[in-house]
Amino acid sequence: MTNSPTTACVLVIGNEVLSGRTQDANIQFLATALNAQGIRLSEVRVIADSEPAIVEAINHCRARYTYVFTTGGIGFTHDDITAKAVATAFGLPFTRHAGAEAILREHYQGKLNDARLTMADMPEGAELIENPVSRAPGIKVENVYVLAGVPSIVRAMFDAFKHTLEGGRVLESRTVHTSLSEGMIAAELGAVQDAHTNVEIGSYPFFRLQRFGVNLVVRGDDLGLIEAAIGDLKQMIENLGGEAHDGEAETESISG
Amino acid sequence: MTNSPTTACVLVIGNEVLSGRTQDANIQFLATALNAQGIRLSEVRVIADSEPAIVEAINHCRARYTYVFTTGGIGFTHDDITAKAVATAFGLPFTRHAGAEAILREHYQGKLNDARLTMADMPEGAELIENPVSRAPGIKVENVYVLAGVPSIVRAMFDAFKHTLEGGRVLESRTVHTSLSEGMIAAELGAVQDAHTNVEIGSYPFFRLQRFGVNLVVRGDDLGLIEAAIGDLKQMIENLGGEAHDGEAETESISG
Repeated sequence: MTNSPTTACVLVIGNEVLSGRTQDANIQFLATALNAQGIRLSEVRVIADSEPAIVEAINHCRARYTYVFTTGGIGFTHDDITAKAVATAFGLPFTRHAGAEAILREHYQGKLNDARLTMADMPEGAELIENPVSRAPGIKVENVYVLAGVPSIVRAMFDAFKHTLEGGRVLESRTVHTSLSEGMIAAELGAVQDAHTNVEIGSYPFFRLQRFGVNLVVRGDDLGLIEAAIGDLKQMIENLGGEAHDGEAETESISG
Repeated sequence: MTNSPTTACVLVIGNEVLSGRTQDANIQFLATALNAQGIRLSEVRVIADSEPAIVEAINHCRARYTYVFTTGGIGFTHDDITAKAVATAFGLPFTRHAGAEAILREHYQGKLNDARLTMADMPEGAELIENPVSRAPGIKVENVYVLAGVPSIVRAMFDAFKHTLEGGRVLESRTVHTSLSEGMIAAELGAVQDAHTNVEIGSYPFFRLQRFGVNLVVRGDDLGLIEAAIGDLKQMIENLGGEAHDGEAETESISG
């Protein structure tokens, strides 16, 4: 990379993912959406619905990455402890937010009971993240964005604030594929990577319907440098007796 | 829980997951398989194909959890750096493993070139993990198990050594669902959790086809304690004017 990237970490707060009950459905969305605006997703952690675990992960990651996004554990039942844990992590009082209370009162009207009202309890001074789906807002404290766990709400919340995120250069990628096997190209491939240190070349072998081959993905923030590496990869493939094709082979990856 | 659990951490080593290119397909399998034999998956991290990142995560997690499982980044191209990083994490020389070399020689026969042979380079003293799918073995060093990234190979490797893992009491769960909304039960639900501290009650609201409701999942390692909590949950639902049904409602979760 040619400049220091803007980075992000996602914290998935979810016993239901750790127990195997639920397949996470937010990581890939956030990875794609962040990278699309020049923010590198550098780490993801799935952690338990446990205040010490959440506090530790938030404090570690907010010091290390430009942005931290949490998913899950906001709501109003006893197992929704993310908001309280964020207050603890920042050493802030956990208090009722007048703006959030007003949103909930308008949304629930006569059905706003004490339990639902706890969704307005937040770290003092928190900014609200708009929730166009079910109204109960997310929470922003400094560089930590506290989102719901429901995929449709995560997407809506992200769309509501994404224009405020400061991205770096967008990570671009180009892919070539060939039916040569990884074993036939590995040594030469390493040499191409060594000659193009400003891009990152990933090698993803595939096998499907009796076809073997490999997708070579070149990632970087400068399209010219990416195209130069792609050119050398195509030359390499031809020198080894293969055919290079643009884009990804339509097969499932088998890569380790 | 009534005794100190056996714990595990999964490290997904994969730029392709962090970039959004690939949806992880191993976390849920490992979560389910580990929990089925009494090992609590306590944390998952998705980290970059970067030696410092891998070394740091391995050393942090192997000291904290009973078992660490890595997926991805083993192979023989320049971007496969997991095995080397494990050697660095343990302060071990990175050397050719005679047993692994023999397996590769038998499998590849005349096609074993220098690149493929690097799959026999391992932390000194590593034990091999059998790979019934594509032969190139995984690596075990102390409590760290280094697996492939390909889902079918992860499953086959896990099946090959799972009988050697020492589990604790298996985490059981029972579920009831009701069409009462979370907002109507939240306060009473918290009281049931407070009365049953040896189980963990998760609340997962759902909405589909115009039906609202909530799945209440009780988890623990003692079926008697779980059933007692389920009984109190059913009573609670009836007291609130609802109907309790065994099992999970066939809907998608909307829980945060």
